[in-house]
Amino acid sequence: MADTLPQIGFGFWKVACQDAANVAYEAIAAGYRHLDCAADYGNETEVGQGIARAIADGLVTREDLWITSKLWNTFHAPEHVEEGCRKSLSDLGLDYLDLYLVHFPIALEYVPIDTRYPPEWVHDPDAQSGMKRAKVPLHATWGAMETLVGKGLTKRIGVCNYNSGLIHDLMSYATVHPHTLQIEAHPYLTQERLIRLAKDYGIEVTAFSPLGALSYVELDMAGQGDSVLTEPAVLAAAQAHGKTPAQVVLRWGVQRGTSIIPKTSKPERMRENLDIMDFALSEEEMNAISALNQNRRFNDPGTFTEAAFNTFHPIYD
Amino acid sequence: MADTLPQIGFGFWKVACQDAANVAYEAIAAGYRHLDCAADYGNETEVGQGIARAIADGLVTREDLWITSKLWNTFHAPEHVEEGCRKSLSDLGLDYLDLYLVHFPIALEYVPIDTRYPPEWVHDPDAQSGMKRAKVPLHATWGAMETLVGKGLTKRIGVCNYNSGLIHDLMSYATVHPHTLQIEAHPYLTQERLIRLAKDYGIEVTAFSPLGALSYVELDMAGQGDSVLTEPAVLAAAQAHGKTPAQVVLRWGVQRGTSIIPKTSKPERMRENLDIMDFALSEEEMNAISALNQNRRFNDPGTFTEAAFNTFHPIYD
Repeated sequence: MADTLPQIGFGFWKVACQDAANVAYEAIAAGYRHLDCAADYGNETEVGQGIARAIADGLVTREDLWITSKLWNTFHAPEHVEEGCRKSLSDLGLDYLDLYLVHFPIALEYVPIDTRYPPEWVHDPDAQSGMKRAKVPLHATWGAMETLVGKGLTKRIGVCNYNSGLIHDLMSYATVHPHTLQIEAHPYLTQERLIRLAKDYGIEVTAFSPLGALSYVELDMAGQGDSVLTEPAVLAAAQAHGKTPAQVVLRWGVQRGTSIIPKTSKPERMRENLDIMDFALSEEEMNAISALNQNRRFNDPGTFTEAAFNTFHPIYD
Repeated sequence: MADTLPQIGFGFWKVACQDAANVAYEAIAAGYRHLDCAADYGNETEVGQGIARAIADGLVTREDLWITSKLWNTFHAPEHVEEGCRKSLSDLGLDYLDLYLVHFPIALEYVPIDTRYPPEWVHDPDAQSGMKRAKVPLHATWGAMETLVGKGLTKRIGVCNYNSGLIHDLMSYATVHPHTLQIEAHPYLTQERLIRLAKDYGIEVTAFSPLGALSYVELDMAGQGDSVLTEPAVLAAAQAHGKTPAQVVLRWGVQRGTSIIPKTSKPERMRENLDIMDFALSEEEMNAISALNQNRRFNDPGTFTEAAFNTFHPIYD
């Protein structure tokens, strides 16, 4: 029974539609029980097909799985939150989510599902009109998220990409406790204080992009030289424990108390990423990896919204 | 008439009570028209005496001045916002403020004025019980701030120490436009993106601690070696323009479009800090000073709340 968030999950960001059903099936077969999805990833229908096949084949039951999805920016208005959630449920072929997250603290103008889905960042791709902000306060969105729990559409709710100022405010108005904060975190962006604050508030933390730059090279948001996997501190620990550099970095993530959601399309890599619970990094190794911190953020709307969508929208500055 | 926020103001943080009346008088005599005050500075009564004397002596009229004050953290609950504002007005001896700011995006439990004023950070100094957070959403505080404008208690309202995530949210619920964002900014903390975002939203930006570490050495929050005033880029510009390094750094602040509120107790320094409108830094000089940025924050609750008040409360991470 997935009553607690598994420490290692599988992230579906950037898994291509045509692969997603097989990847989801293979991930479950490899042992993943937490599947991290989102409307914005554009592959929930296919992920749902993979889940259905795995259940039909007897690999798991629905109750064994922890399925996370995320409310997209264009569904922040209270009257659209349930629609967004039900669309994800329907695409995934599920009756309930284990966790539903606000994807970004960014409210954009509503785009009807019939018009375009997933709606992505830009209101009108043809007009190149940039992002259209909607005046929807985060507390209003959160209030609508809370009603989803009461309706049984999701067991828990939480947020992504909130900073400490937003977390304090969230805790002042939440009547349903936020279960999880999902943030970018890796050895180049250790986020010690934000993670500590979340834990102080009893909020679990999931690290996305736990391997750092790897996810961003293909998007031209990082270079090959930005990889943490060639750092001497990582290589030394890998050699000492007979593990790969990636396993060391993932282990570091788990051992510091965050859950992680690495992504890969290769079954052997899926197993490699799961195989990190049979060793422990020493305190010195943990500290040496944490010391790699550069406050280096790869997934930063303050950068990519301007470059890609002609709208300057920083949220972390 | 102070219809626009003067570019150079006088900041009363850390001006000792016994000096504040004279300092306020001297500042007005030196030519300052913007006086930046706050309940928390513990000297509004004395600043008010200085203002009253300057008006009585015919140096200025009330209408010539721009008086800013700030709502303290313990007055965030909507039912206490007007009380906080009226207390500042009464201490300052004024009928209205030109600008009233939310001092921090931090809500603390109410402390009655009769119990302790200003209440500072810790609820019960004797018990050393640390800060006591109050569950007051920022939107509720802002709503009460808006009513102050309708009642004529302040002409404008704004916020301090908000980051970009909080600014977006504020803009989603504000019905009275926030006039000003006041933040720490100096060549070691240039805040380009936050300033740009505020301007995009039509919010003016005031830089506090415009000279950097100087304000923090006496508080042991910075060392003598942290001064920006000995940077070669600053010294070179000072020599080129026949100005002091402090004047160069203040000019940089004004020229980049922020208003500034330096503090000093020395009348000759007051005049020096005002005397920066007769020269302009070149684009190269501006860029060289901006390049000193280290994202170095001296006034960080994430550090000082724990050190001084035994409560971990980061707001910028």
